[in-house]
Amino acid sequence: MTTENARKGLQLRSIITKDATLELSLVSQETPPPKADEVIVRIEASPLNPSDMGLLFGGAEMDGAEAAGTADSPVITAKLTPPVMAAMAGRVGESMPVGNEGAGEVIEAGDAPEAQALLGKTVAILGGAMYSQYRKMRASDCLVMPEGTTAVDGASCFVNPLTVLGMLGTMRLENHTALVHTAAASNLGQMLSKLCAQDGVPLVNIVRKQEQVDILKGIGAKYVVNSTSATFKDELTDMLVETGATLAFDATGGGRLAGQILAAMEVAAIRTAAEYSRYGSTIHKQVYIYGGLDRGPTEFNRAFGMAWGIGGWLLTPYLQNIGAEGAQKLRERVASEITTTFASTYTKEISLAEALTLDAIAVYGKQATGEKYLIRPNMGV
Amino acid sequence: MTTENARKGLQLRSIITKDATLELSLVSQETPPPKADEVIVRIEASPLNPSDMGLLFGGAEMDGAEAAGTADSPVITAKLTPPVMAAMAGRVGESMPVGNEGAGEVIEAGDAPEAQALLGKTVAILGGAMYSQYRKMRASDCLVMPEGTTAVDGASCFVNPLTVLGMLGTMRLENHTALVHTAAASNLGQMLSKLCAQDGVPLVNIVRKQEQVDILKGIGAKYVVNSTSATFKDELTDMLVETGATLAFDATGGGRLAGQILAAMEVAAIRTAAEYSRYGSTIHKQVYIYGGLDRGPTEFNRAFGMAWGIGGWLLTPYLQNIGAEGAQKLRERVASEITTTFASTYTKEISLAEALTLDAIAVYGKQATGEKYLIRPNMGV
Repeated sequence: MTTENARKGLQLRSIITKDATLELSLVSQETPPPKADEVIVRIEASPLNPSDMGLLFGGAEMDGAEAAGTADSPVITAKLTPPVMAAMAGRVGESMPVGNEGAGEVIEAGDAPEAQALLGKTVAILGGAMYSQYRKMRASDCLVMPEGTTAVDGASCFVNPLTVLGMLGTMRLENHTALVHTAAASNLGQMLSKLCAQDGVPLVNIVRKQEQVDILKGIGAKYVVNSTSATFKDELTDMLVETGATLAFDATGGGRLAGQILAAMEVAAIRTAAEYSRYGSTIHKQVYIYGGLDRGPTEFNRAFGMAWGIGGWLLTPYLQNIGAEGAQKLRERVASEITTTFASTYTKEISLAEALTLDAIAVYGKQATGEKYLIRPNMGV
Repeated sequence: MTTENARKGLQLRSIITKDATLELSLVSQETPPPKADEVIVRIEASPLNPSDMGLLFGGAEMDGAEAAGTADSPVITAKLTPPVMAAMAGRVGESMPVGNEGAGEVIEAGDAPEAQALLGKTVAILGGAMYSQYRKMRASDCLVMPEGTTAVDGASCFVNPLTVLGMLGTMRLENHTALVHTAAASNLGQMLSKLCAQDGVPLVNIVRKQEQVDILKGIGAKYVVNSTSATFKDELTDMLVETGATLAFDATGGGRLAGQILAAMEVAAIRTAAEYSRYGSTIHKQVYIYGGLDRGPTEFNRAFGMAWGIGGWLLTPYLQNIGAEGAQKLRERVASEITTTFASTYTKEISLAEALTLDAIAVYGKQATGEKYLIRPNMGV
């Protein structure tokens, strides 16, 4: 297993060319041999996360994408509009590997004891270029899976699990005691629901379809509200009074939802306040936007006093903020609960070549609830 | 001067009645005698600040206000719309005194030495109910004006001076090095411009009329940009590149300006960044909304990566945050520079009764640049 051939494999690449075209393809490349403290992982499973889509598609108009090449060596092209092209100036001409996270088997290791100790182990890894058959990693960056855990089990150890742990950590750091979450029936939302139940944190789940209410109720969620209901604002306000939630994580970004949440938090705060305050409630109300499912503009009426904030939230700065030791504790918790609290489910497993078909892109590119794909780079090889 | 009569005087009151009507009037009332550590201030000057308008008018429709009563005892009434009335539920039926700050002479003092020491002194005071002829205060809450300073000089010692000092303090606390300010030709804006010049902090001033550009250029401002200019975005971006400003204080609140500032900050950050970052610039960009000159909705397109925030900003939480000692230092700086850096100008001095005329309300109620009124409660008495 340690021959040179075992390190030669396919890698998915995304490039934006000067003529405003996105091109997705597979390249064959050889991974250099590991240094003393490095290992080679044969990647068995890597999820197509919403957070991968930006780098993968580069904001191109995928509805008009075209397919070329062969079944084994497909090529997808799509055009970029001028404003998107302007925003992508920094990556034009650069062939970029994609895929934030994955899991696989360590098939080769450097001479250092910590590298040798990983030989044959199933590990989860984070760091880009995971839509590849082989990936060189530092041994210390590999998260060893507990005995009996498969690479499919461990494929999504980082992005969703650390994000939901980061949401709870942010809540505690900023002195809130309960959470609101939107697009709450997503893979990540279900994970957050399980984590909050486990940690005893009240969670208000906002969804927009009855079947999403049913999904969350089905896994035991207590507070679920449908934003398309005629009584949405009142239901939400009652839940905010009951839970005391003053922090929301919003995956949608666009539209009026963030402002509606802040306004409901304000009504809830005033309902429970002792006396009139001329600038509105003095309790800080915060919405963090961590996704952009709604690409439209964000709009709100500031009907929520002066103690409020809306901002972007990303996992990486949070992890930097809590430091290496804090982040390591989170990773260890994920590994120990990867088949329970932090388990992910996928609707389909596909090869690298299948990931570059118009049919597959039409499904996983939509980021719809309950349609999550898993890439198996070495499946059937 | 220490007779009972010297403590009996007029006070401006604002009340919202159950039938959704605002009523403004003057009441005659006697101030209780001072306790040992208290003094009685005969208020000589108190400004009509934008931050007073919320409590004074209660969101009523002042364009349709009606006048009644006599010249000496005027009564103004105006209607409230149902949504505003709902927001004002907490103050219905309560006759509220108004006026955040003022200055005057200490005419009576309690027995304690710190109170006696203030007799005959000109002091600046903060704490509401300043649109009154007499105001009881704790001696320790009086800011003694330097020799030769009049009550008119000292009338605006707190709201604007502490706000501009708070903006600079927030900038330093949150690790920014330069500022952006909107509605920048206001009384407060000119003060901020003078303070930034004195402290060596680069300040980008955004205004919307050429005469406002001229006002700021006239007092030595280096960076002034007109938001109605066809080249606004480019000019603003260039100024942000030059100054490195990543924090803005926005007095307008509504509309697209806050988002435009964040978008320009993002372009400036990317222009000066070393390499492409997939989630946009990693530099945190912040806009604090501290006023609501534009009552319309706030709208933005999130074309500024993930490291951003928009939020409300108020002086009081900032002062609580820096603690009693920090706040006292700021007040002492204001007192020592009240006729220079922190000097205010007024277009007209009016009596309490004149403040309750439709003509006066039509001017000071607009909060227009260069139209600031000063109430002189004991003028001509």
